[in-house]
Amino acid sequence: MLVEQSIPPLPEGFTLQRITNEDYDKGALRVLEQLTVVGEVSKESFETYVSEQSDKHITITIKDPNGEIVGISTLLIETKLIHGFSKVGHVEDVAVDKSMRGSKIGLSMLKYLTNLAIENGCYKVILDCDEKNVGFYEKCGFSRAGVEMQYR
Amino acid sequence: MLVEQSIPPLPEGFTLQRITNEDYDKGALRVLEQLTVVGEVSKESFETYVSEQSDKHITITIKDPNGEIVGISTLLIETKLIHGFSKVGHVEDVAVDKSMRGSKIGLSMLKYLTNLAIENGCYKVILDCDEKNVGFYEKCGFSRAGVEMQYR
Repeated sequence: MLVEQSIPPLPEGFTLQRITNEDYDKGALRVLEQLTVVGEVSKESFETYVSEQSDKHITITIKDPNGEIVGISTLLIETKLIHGFSKVGHVEDVAVDKSMRGSKIGLSMLKYLTNLAIENGCYKVILDCDEKNVGFYEKCGFSRAGVEMQYR
Repeated sequence: MLVEQSIPPLPEGFTLQRITNEDYDKGALRVLEQLTVVGEVSKESFETYVSEQSDKHITITIKDPNGEIVGISTLLIETKLIHGFSKVGHVEDVAVDKSMRGSKIGLSMLKYLTNLAIENGCYKVILDCDEKNVGFYEKCGFSRAGVEMQYR
């Protein structure tokens, strides 16, 4: 059984919450662009994405005291037949604004999502990352498990 | 844009289909047990799993001419904000019965699920595997992309 971990407190005035439609104008895409290609995402598409959020697809943001997004990440919860009809959490698209690199908000997001996965009955939480980010995820309590393969 | 690939034909009399409640008695768990720990899965849990199948969570089986399952695997389709509000396919829990190792049914399942992901608008398909299985997935058209990390 996984045990929940304590979440490092956010800096004064920063908040963590689920994504909302208003986040289109609060920098959600600007922060994601620092992770990978975002391209064209209309407000309508953004709102569709938000409307499809569920107890199995949860995107969170961290906002600074001005309400601007400085961190974003997503948890998918997958029901499995294996491990006694258990669940696995998939952490996706962890992005932190460059102004906040070196702060602990990435760690706070990871611990928050890991705890959320545990509360929802996941027997493990997994994610894929580049070799250069392995050290960060080790600080978040993760360890190497295998090889990510892609078809594209 | 990803291009669909041709799927190797199944051996005479073998079939590929979506999972159904009846598969509880057709060897679904027996085949998965050859992949990892399955443990106790009641018929009720199995039917809950089947009832939660959707256009974003698709489990397929391959059956031999007697209707017994010899292969099983799952595709999750995740909607992303990135890549222009695109989608990624996650292939999960690919298991082939030991009697069929060396046949091409694993390859058929992978190509089928990859094509399904492409038809559903995925810009890439990913999966995690052990180092020892990299060669098999390379034969399926996949290439190394990154490191799988786990918290457990």
